[in-house]
Amino acid sequence: MAKDFSTREENYSKWYNDIVQRADLAENSAVRGCMVIKPYGYAIWELMQSALDQMFKDTGHSNAYFPIFIPKSFFSKEADHVEGFAKECAVVTHYRLKNDPNGKGVVVDEDAKLEEELIIRPTSETIIWDTYRNWVQSYRDLPILVNQWANVVRWEMRTRMFLRTAEFLWQEGHTAHATKEEALEETRKMLDVYSVFAEKFMAIPVLKGVKSENERFAGAIDTYCIEALMQDGKALQAGTSHFLGQNFAKAFDVKFTSKEGKLEYVWATSWGVSTRLIGALIMAHSDDHGLVLPPKLAPIQVVIVPIYKNEEQYKLVCDKADEIRLELQKKGIRVKLDDRDTYKPGWKFNEYEFKGVPLRLAIGPRDVENETIEIARRDTLEKSIYNQKDLANKIVHLLEAVQDNLYQKALTFRDTRTYYADSWDEFKQLLEKGGFIYAHWDGTTETEQKIKEETKATIRCIPLVSKKEEGKCIYSGKPSSQRVVFALAY
Amino acid sequence: MAKDFSTREENYSKWYNDIVQRADLAENSAVRGCMVIKPYGYAIWELMQSALDQMFKDTGHSNAYFPIFIPKSFFSKEADHVEGFAKECAVVTHYRLKNDPNGKGVVVDEDAKLEEELIIRPTSETIIWDTYRNWVQSYRDLPILVNQWANVVRWEMRTRMFLRTAEFLWQEGHTAHATKEEALEETRKMLDVYSVFAEKFMAIPVLKGVKSENERFAGAIDTYCIEALMQDGKALQAGTSHFLGQNFAKAFDVKFTSKEGKLEYVWATSWGVSTRLIGALIMAHSDDHGLVLPPKLAPIQVVIVPIYKNEEQYKLVCDKADEIRLELQKKGIRVKLDDRDTYKPGWKFNEYEFKGVPLRLAIGPRDVENETIEIARRDTLEKSIYNQKDLANKIVHLLEAVQDNLYQKALTFRDTRTYYADSWDEFKQLLEKGGFIYAHWDGTTETEQKIKEETKATIRCIPLVSKKEEGKCIYSGKPSSQRVVFALAY
Repeated sequence: MAKDFSTREENYSKWYNDIVQRADLAENSAVRGCMVIKPYGYAIWELMQSALDQMFKDTGHSNAYFPIFIPKSFFSKEADHVEGFAKECAVVTHYRLKNDPNGKGVVVDEDAKLEEELIIRPTSETIIWDTYRNWVQSYRDLPILVNQWANVVRWEMRTRMFLRTAEFLWQEGHTAHATKEEALEETRKMLDVYSVFAEKFMAIPVLKGVKSENERFAGAIDTYCIEALMQDGKALQAGTSHFLGQNFAKAFDVKFTSKEGKLEYVWATSWGVSTRLIGALIMAHSDDHGLVLPPKLAPIQVVIVPIYKNEEQYKLVCDKADEIRLELQKKGIRVKLDDRDTYKPGWKFNEYEFKGVPLRLAIGPRDVENETIEIARRDTLEKSIYNQKDLANKIVHLLEAVQDNLYQKALTFRDTRTYYADSWDEFKQLLEKGGFIYAHWDGTTETEQKIKEETKATIRCIPLVSKKEEGKCIYSGKPSSQRVVFALAY
Repeated sequence: MAKDFSTREENYSKWYNDIVQRADLAENSAVRGCMVIKPYGYAIWELMQSALDQMFKDTGHSNAYFPIFIPKSFFSKEADHVEGFAKECAVVTHYRLKNDPNGKGVVVDEDAKLEEELIIRPTSETIIWDTYRNWVQSYRDLPILVNQWANVVRWEMRTRMFLRTAEFLWQEGHTAHATKEEALEETRKMLDVYSVFAEKFMAIPVLKGVKSENERFAGAIDTYCIEALMQDGKALQAGTSHFLGQNFAKAFDVKFTSKEGKLEYVWATSWGVSTRLIGALIMAHSDDHGLVLPPKLAPIQVVIVPIYKNEEQYKLVCDKADEIRLELQKKGIRVKLDDRDTYKPGWKFNEYEFKGVPLRLAIGPRDVENETIEIARRDTLEKSIYNQKDLANKIVHLLEAVQDNLYQKALTFRDTRTYYADSWDEFKQLLEKGGFIYAHWDGTTETEQKIKEETKATIRCIPLVSKKEEGKCIYSGKPSSQRVVFALAY
């Protein structure tokens, strides 16, 4: 490990940035708040996309594409939405440049001013519900189950790669239903899709819950979410699924004739996850040696490094290594043979360790002779010698073991950082340790905001699975019927 | 066929728009010049993306993502580029809205004016080469073989769905090389990828060539292109691959230390295709009965329509149809069983015919009894009765036959519309017929522009494959060593 790389304990925030940059995931661009997602980082996003897209299609959704521009007036149509959203965003006012009359490059052509400004979508409810109006006449046109993969822009003042950037990539599902029940079912179904994805693919245990009124999406009746715990004890909202009621249908006048012949407003949901998930992935598993990736989302699952002293050995070892590479590839494993002669094995070991490749295979002349191979696990940093016989199956099992181990480690970490606070003092002490704190709350926004002001802690969610339990609000002492989950959060 | 649907002869332009809209491919949005790509149209794009992406990866490329915003000053850095491009584009000038003090919705917050305006990318050479500067030090860092799937915006005054829209989706490859030869090889390799894709997947024969200086991409040394012929005899540029020389490396100061230890500028290429390809696909194959899709790009390759008179028959027929559906699905065929009881078979026949589904299977009680099935081909509109035995393999062969037939039809059409003109009068007469015209040209931009002014015809390309042939320019009578291809174009 290079000396200029921080450990988590020294400086968690720098540790995170170092990983993002040195593992070649992303970098800051020339445009304030916007990042460049580099090929290795983007390959992780492609794996996420591919898994999620399949899950969306398996649950009956299709993809579509809506304009990046939203007429300014659309934001005012849904009152809560404009309050919560439309403020910090990129505004297009002109549609032409011209040569600077003074000969200094180009300037905005003031004659090409738009009649109505266009906003770059921070989210697409408004433009999509304006479109749905023409798609829906009768109950036969419902449900509409549409998803969009797109870029969105929110002009954040303080940005951080993957976690909070001015432009980011995401998917946004927007569905339309004939009944409230069906829309609610969809909202919860997509929350389940997200939680299965987080646990099975990202190897991150998540808490499913509902947001308090204060933390709700602007325009939603209810916001469901999954919350994950990072290694510094802070929570990260990893995905949200909104039950929008009839708010957007009313704002954009989307009605349908029901089976009974009545004209009714359509019920809506929306749900999304973004490149922020890559930030969560980094912070959940990585260690002081660099990035750690769960095999299911690792662009390279296995790297083979040949060990040799001379040209004769190089040929011998690389031939065998290439055979192994092919064998693994046939099993569907994402494998890379790094046979570059310009870098030494030690350099390569560091490189792939830092980039979080789950398994590293090293093979030398002695191994070729003995039909053995050394396998190093990134998650445990353990090395073992294996016989080459039936290697592909052994690798498949090892990859599964790494995936499981990362999930178990994250689960154990979360369990040891899950606390119950029964008094205000206890609450404040536990907050310093970092983690999820189950505590009673009186249900008012006033109390929620006071707690936030005094401690920066927010209600992450009202958990879906929890026992009813009478208690007293840790802040106000007023009665409460259920514990909610507090944490400091990203 | 509905009466309000135009034929090609009646009104080609309306015929095109009718297909786009009635086949549920796309529609105009509330934002001028921007379209909504509907699920059925987007599914075609997904199939295109998936095939192209695999071809890019097979040729060693990785995907990455760069900011949608480009600082205004970047456009002035490459002199030709700014001349050719930076004029009609969306300009972001502010980053915040605020509540209207008069209570009428939201207005732009004048306090939130950007110091430097940001342009929504019309293409990304500038921001990408600004990034590459930090990626390249030594020859060991080369080549960079990167592609981006993204949305871009060009503020077109006259728009047409898929063919020319203000926002469109595309991919843009941007590669960096140590030598001129390597960059040229890449430029041609990607042109080949495009032409293979057009011919094998889209079933459209294309002409490979080089653009004249006048038609070159702004900032390129050479622009290679593939040109396709539409049914109205107009040409459509279906993809371009640019050899950029060292222009962008010089503009953004991207140098590397060569093997010999010398500091040199990097060589560049860029190449792209867009959702415009969907427009080409429609215009190449569709007929007066609606859309016709080549099986490789058809979201639904086979539709099964049950025929029945009563509930008993419905169950009998649907059970069998579902068996067949599963059998086809196992073979990897994209099959849909439309067992909706709310629409009649005749309505469904029209619907899928209009949507260009390559094969339609109809099955009734008699078929169940006789183990037969009726198959209708969309390309020929022929119906035949087949035995159900070994049906999946028969369908696989039929789909191949449809794919081949569409290509052959398009090839024959192009051949019959390919002309040789040896005089100015002949040239003008042939132009009225529509098609590709091979003619001698004196090689000057002056002549090219005069021909364009007088006839609207442009040089589509200087074909890569052509015999050298001495001749005289059809317009100026000056000597010429090779025929070039003229046409009216989209």
